[in-house]
Amino acid sequence: MYTKALVTDLYQLTMMQGLFFEGKHEQRCVFDRFYRKNPFQNGYTVIAGLNHVIDYVKRLRFGADDLQYLRHTGFFKEEFLRYLQGFSFTGDIYAMPEGTVAFPQEVLLRVHAKKSEAILLETCLSMILNHESLIATKARRIRTVAGNDTLMEFGLRRAQGKSAGVHGARAAMIGGFNGTSNVLAGAMFHMPVLGTMAHSWIMSFASELEAFRAYVRQYPNNLILLVDTYNTLKQGVPNAIKIFTELRQKNCLPAVYGIRLDSGDLAYLSKEARKQLQAAGFSDAIIAASNDLDENLIAELKAQGSEINSWGVGTHLITAKDSPSLGGVFKLVGQYEDGQFVPKIKMSDNVEKISNPGIKNVLRIYDKETGKMKADVITLAGEEIDSTKDYELTSDKAPWRFRLLKGGTYHVKSLLQPIFKEGRAVYTTPPLQDIISYAEEQIQSLWPEYRRLVNPEEMWVQRSKKLSALREELLEKESMKFF
Amino acid sequence: MYTKALVTDLYQLTMMQGLFFEGKHEQRCVFDRFYRKNPFQNGYTVIAGLNHVIDYVKRLRFGADDLQYLRHTGFFKEEFLRYLQGFSFTGDIYAMPEGTVAFPQEVLLRVHAKKSEAILLETCLSMILNHESLIATKARRIRTVAGNDTLMEFGLRRAQGKSAGVHGARAAMIGGFNGTSNVLAGAMFHMPVLGTMAHSWIMSFASELEAFRAYVRQYPNNLILLVDTYNTLKQGVPNAIKIFTELRQKNCLPAVYGIRLDSGDLAYLSKEARKQLQAAGFSDAIIAASNDLDENLIAELKAQGSEINSWGVGTHLITAKDSPSLGGVFKLVGQYEDGQFVPKIKMSDNVEKISNPGIKNVLRIYDKETGKMKADVITLAGEEIDSTKDYELTSDKAPWRFRLLKGGTYHVKSLLQPIFKEGRAVYTTPPLQDIISYAEEQIQSLWPEYRRLVNPEEMWVQRSKKLSALREELLEKESMKFF
Repeated sequence: MYTKALVTDLYQLTMMQGLFFEGKHEQRCVFDRFYRKNPFQNGYTVIAGLNHVIDYVKRLRFGADDLQYLRHTGFFKEEFLRYLQGFSFTGDIYAMPEGTVAFPQEVLLRVHAKKSEAILLETCLSMILNHESLIATKARRIRTVAGNDTLMEFGLRRAQGKSAGVHGARAAMIGGFNGTSNVLAGAMFHMPVLGTMAHSWIMSFASELEAFRAYVRQYPNNLILLVDTYNTLKQGVPNAIKIFTELRQKNCLPAVYGIRLDSGDLAYLSKEARKQLQAAGFSDAIIAASNDLDENLIAELKAQGSEINSWGVGTHLITAKDSPSLGGVFKLVGQYEDGQFVPKIKMSDNVEKISNPGIKNVLRIYDKETGKMKADVITLAGEEIDSTKDYELTSDKAPWRFRLLKGGTYHVKSLLQPIFKEGRAVYTTPPLQDIISYAEEQIQSLWPEYRRLVNPEEMWVQRSKKLSALREELLEKESMKFF
Repeated sequence: MYTKALVTDLYQLTMMQGLFFEGKHEQRCVFDRFYRKNPFQNGYTVIAGLNHVIDYVKRLRFGADDLQYLRHTGFFKEEFLRYLQGFSFTGDIYAMPEGTVAFPQEVLLRVHAKKSEAILLETCLSMILNHESLIATKARRIRTVAGNDTLMEFGLRRAQGKSAGVHGARAAMIGGFNGTSNVLAGAMFHMPVLGTMAHSWIMSFASELEAFRAYVRQYPNNLILLVDTYNTLKQGVPNAIKIFTELRQKNCLPAVYGIRLDSGDLAYLSKEARKQLQAAGFSDAIIAASNDLDENLIAELKAQGSEINSWGVGTHLITAKDSPSLGGVFKLVGQYEDGQFVPKIKMSDNVEKISNPGIKNVLRIYDKETGKMKADVITLAGEEIDSTKDYELTSDKAPWRFRLLKGGTYHVKSLLQPIFKEGRAVYTTPPLQDIISYAEEQIQSLWPEYRRLVNPEEMWVQRSKKLSALREELLEKESMKFF
């Protein structure tokens, strides 16, 4: 059995070995995780995956099979393999809690560790956080259009593998979904898991009506009947109504009951089905729908007066179909040289790829009266903003723009929490339900302009003056080298 | 520890229990797996994932933790849980081997089993085959433009979870890639795994030159130097040339050596780098590149005379970015009723969603002289095509089109292989290298017109006359019900 220590790119291990033999593997350094663009052209990203990362870092050890494989590749020497055998993470990690709403360039996670430790974490940590934050953000976009409707994650069969399905289902909950069809996700994360029947159930009986009757015998209280196997409006809905009527006559109609549509024109079919249900006195029946849904289609169906109030979302959510990756990166921002911390900057021909150097934090400014976010400030660690005093918001991109926050009208929250201290986990992941509530709060603290699906307003994110000064200084030093 | 038995949608389990208590769970039935559209608007799909499916089906058992969780959900009765405890797959499976080139509507895999067994397989089997075939197909598109260049899979940090990364890396090999950076994939599937250094290596030393020298000390034979950390043309490439020159003087230059570009304009930088390398007498240096590559960008860079001959492809391949799901489905095509096989058809308002009923096979017709594929015929199982006789190709979509294959000019291959017989695996997955060769052969048997990336010619796929007749008959029967 291989462990997750091998969930990495080979170059991380060859670099570790190289540093080991160059005597540099224990050099203390700081790496930042951040991203440059929100996915889906969204106005924000919902952070998820930290719980998974904590588990990964805690268990990060090389097992006998791992080492045997590495030996077999021919890249590694015995002395280094012995070092790996004793390896564990001994550093510090700070991160934004799951459910936090984040913006481009912000430090999402910061690692203080020996160089070899930080390098080894990069690939797996990036993979987990990129993936789960992406799905949480997609789920939140869908929640934004769904209002108070029920949202179910149905994507497992189109997921890019088991972990995509399972961890994606959890991320969907953080993004505002109500449950999943994914049994393993339900088991692992104590999430609501739901499901009724597929077409193969209906086709297993001599008729649709017989299939519905059999279903009621087995699940009298989980009563969402799939009505589109043969002919939705001419047969499926009338048969469902027949069943509901029989149950009502016997006083057995459960409080929650309804139908599910899985094909055809969902706007038209749901409106016609609603008419039939209402005419028969079943106004409170749920109309659930599935079939290639995403936030755009749900918004359009709603605009057309669809009567659907429960949505099963599959492929588009679980693969984040229109933007299936989040480009979060992990960059060296400084290291200790002769006991002295030396901030580092990564130059690039692409200006937006130049990193923010140094050990940093993110401070979030909220308006006191409305509770809404005003701005985020990326600071050097230890910097504080005194909320009793006036604070200037300025913009790098548009230096003529300027806002003054009056002292006393705002409060400030520091976003990075300690997660590991000297290799020991010091953070307890809250119960999923608390993460969900926190994520909801975070979203509610955004004005609707920032939540718009298309062309949202951009959150005000600025560097502190101290960080800007440090960045300028390093930029100048680096660029002088080529003149 | 939960097992993969829980990698399923809840409704599969609720349907299983329902059928169990209705006494229908042992009804023998046949399910087909097929898809309706090639991903990426490609002309074909490369099949992958069968090895993974075999492993899943072989081990499919409910463990104590699985059952405890299911009990805890409240959906399941003890009698059914006891049945699950003794559950294993006892049916037959036929499938196209990995590396086969397939087309829409073709039977990719067929399950003959008890209803409850077939239902339980659907979700996980679909997930595996959808995902891995998708990535293999994307990889093949990239191989199509890359010619004989080296192709490396670099996507792990952007993969949608661990299984996406690991199984995606294997699928990429089936699609024609040469190796991966993914260590776990290398370990699990005995695949070539490669890697050298990241920017953090360069930044760990006082200068780029010192970083290169340290690297050479550690890896004198794995010599691809990353040259874009500070300034590619003014510093990175000249420094690399300095290193190569020193090694040549000491007669230590390895046969394979070169540079890697990871940012900036890859066409321009590679051409300028090539000039510098050539001027210094290093004409055979590899120029490797990475940075958001896909088949379109590689084709464009090549059209602009790029000098890159080794490509590291990350995000776009591992997420199949432009088309991140394959919509393969799993449909009931018939069942035994009172000992008699009764073919089933799934009706739909969307004509292309109406399924092909009955137990079927796929026969592939090759031209004898050129070895190229002529057409595929979806037949009823047991049907044969006598290649000594003339055979008519006709088209459902364009009934006026017609081709006659002269007897003796073609040969016929049956595509579905037996994989499980009465629950026992009867198929041995070939070594990965053999699958890769077979996949390459399959691709070479397509005329280039079918391999074109954009608007490829559509392969001739038709139903046999017997299958068409059965389909017509069932269609008529079903549609009569609503008149």
